[in-house]
Amino acid sequence: MDKNDIVISSRVRLARNVADYPFTLNDERATLIAKRVIDVVSQLDNFSVYPISKLGELDGRLLVEKHLVSPDLLNNKKYGVAVINSNQTVSIMLNEEDHIREQCILPGLALSEGLNQLNIIDDILSQNIDFAFNSKLGYLTSCLTNVGTGLRASVMMFLPGLTLSGQIDRFIYKMNRLNMTVRGVYGEGTEYLGCLYQISNQKTLGISEEETILSVKFAIEQIVETEKAMRMQLMQQNGDELIDKILRAYGQLINCYTIGTHEFMELFAYLKLGIFYGLFEAQSEDALKELITEVQPAGICSKAGRMLDDETRDKLRAKIVGEKLQNNIKRLFISDITNK
Amino acid sequence: MDKNDIVISSRVRLARNVADYPFTLNDERATLIAKRVIDVVSQLDNFSVYPISKLGELDGRLLVEKHLVSPDLLNNKKYGVAVINSNQTVSIMLNEEDHIREQCILPGLALSEGLNQLNIIDDILSQNIDFAFNSKLGYLTSCLTNVGTGLRASVMMFLPGLTLSGQIDRFIYKMNRLNMTVRGVYGEGTEYLGCLYQISNQKTLGISEEETILSVKFAIEQIVETEKAMRMQLMQQNGDELIDKILRAYGQLINCYTIGTHEFMELFAYLKLGIFYGLFEAQSEDALKELITEVQPAGICSKAGRMLDDETRDKLRAKIVGEKLQNNIKRLFISDITNK
Repeated sequence: MDKNDIVISSRVRLARNVADYPFTLNDERATLIAKRVIDVVSQLDNFSVYPISKLGELDGRLLVEKHLVSPDLLNNKKYGVAVINSNQTVSIMLNEEDHIREQCILPGLALSEGLNQLNIIDDILSQNIDFAFNSKLGYLTSCLTNVGTGLRASVMMFLPGLTLSGQIDRFIYKMNRLNMTVRGVYGEGTEYLGCLYQISNQKTLGISEEETILSVKFAIEQIVETEKAMRMQLMQQNGDELIDKILRAYGQLINCYTIGTHEFMELFAYLKLGIFYGLFEAQSEDALKELITEVQPAGICSKAGRMLDDETRDKLRAKIVGEKLQNNIKRLFISDITNK
Repeated sequence: MDKNDIVISSRVRLARNVADYPFTLNDERATLIAKRVIDVVSQLDNFSVYPISKLGELDGRLLVEKHLVSPDLLNNKKYGVAVINSNQTVSIMLNEEDHIREQCILPGLALSEGLNQLNIIDDILSQNIDFAFNSKLGYLTSCLTNVGTGLRASVMMFLPGLTLSGQIDRFIYKMNRLNMTVRGVYGEGTEYLGCLYQISNQKTLGISEEETILSVKFAIEQIVETEKAMRMQLMQQNGDELIDKILRAYGQLINCYTIGTHEFMELFAYLKLGIFYGLFEAQSEDALKELITEVQPAGICSKAGRMLDDETRDKLRAKIVGEKLQNNIKRLFISDITNK
């Protein structure tokens, strides 16, 4: 597949439970589960242990914004523990919906690589911990929808073409028929924001890990082609209006004095689309990718070194966004484009 | 009164009719009226005669946008004639609602100066033409609301403070109680656009020209003080939101790819307010004042040298606005302002 801005990142997750322990937690079980996993993981290099109870509010929210920890785990102050490697690609959540949830996030389309990395961790854990497993069903999990492989292979995609052309409902319907789930940027129940969507497998039962990865990859390839076609169609059908919206989004991002996360995500989607169409030149694409995480609420507070009230946070966000884009984005004028 | 951006321009108008001619026109009367006035005016330097029937569509609309000719006169292709001086401050409309309407427009608050200039023309005309006049009532006019002095003294004001604070309805009510009329930027029946309002006298009967000018001046002085107070209050009460709106308006004006007249007027009002608050520095205030006329529909077409369809016109407007503001407006950053 071409290098493109459509596939943002890939996330692979395995759900595991300790055999002979009921899924419901109590003080004793939660402590034992955490202890057993931490004992194994502490043999590995580069992993740090973060009990949620000892995590500052800001640090916890930062981990959620980086997708390293689920909001559910963060709410489980009593039993929740996160184990995260130093380059923040692999995290293990303990005492979440399942006893153990292993997760790997990598940039771009990298589901197989993610699964390979998790398999190393999973093998080491399974050599030391007896997982709840049934020879007929596979891995047993707290929620029936994960029984079998316990695998969720998820891809974060940027789909402005499908969104702005009003095709997104049809797209979600089509994905569901391919046994794929479509979720917002912060997972189940969160809204579709900034034209970002997570596409993942629905099935875990009666299907192998490899088949799962292949089925998601197949769906992703189809989506990429549709998205490309939609972007071309949008420009052909409503070019002037679209360029105007993109340039005004840029003008507002560069000049705003206060901006909320949601509005930032919406305007930023137009800006990225503008880069795709060649209306802007980005000096550093990595800097732009980082910006989304940097300007989430906890990201902003972390930059300020303290919790901020909403007004102060929105003003600081506007300042950071304006400065970063001023330094990284060059607006090309239409004549420059047509001369290309 | 301080030099300020609140009072834009002053317009003085005298309504006159030829004695013993009915107000309703026919071919013979219209031709005679035009001939008699033109004969007198042609003795004066610097006046040009524009019969509406011979005026190109674009040229006619340009005169309306410059407030030198009323839309009603332009629609009267059969009989209408405009006589305009070379620096476009004085115009005489023939065969409009009245046989003769003399008008003078000057920048800033200059009602007395305007009346003085008109009186010179009016004296010359009255030496050659017998005006319809009644010793008890004064000048007789087609519409009863002009009987007496036939004078309308009108001031164009920029009132974003009153508009954005939601006080405009109360303000109009108060003006009506002072016997003042409040109209939109293009006169009777036009909407309030870009925070621009024309304030003028209602009464023409039982009041002298000088009293009329004084009463309008008195109202204007009151409005200026209220407007200043409202601008301060707006900044105190909703500073962050207001600065944000102003900066985003600027960002959109600089970057838009297509823009209609109405939206331009609205965003430009915010920009001018931003200059007042010191958020921007304007290199040439005159260039900004001209911009409003330049980017009206006929102004744009005149720049292109031909009539344009709406889409092309709106794109050309965006280009002209962007370039002019890029060259004339410097955004000051908040720290620069507080350091002042």
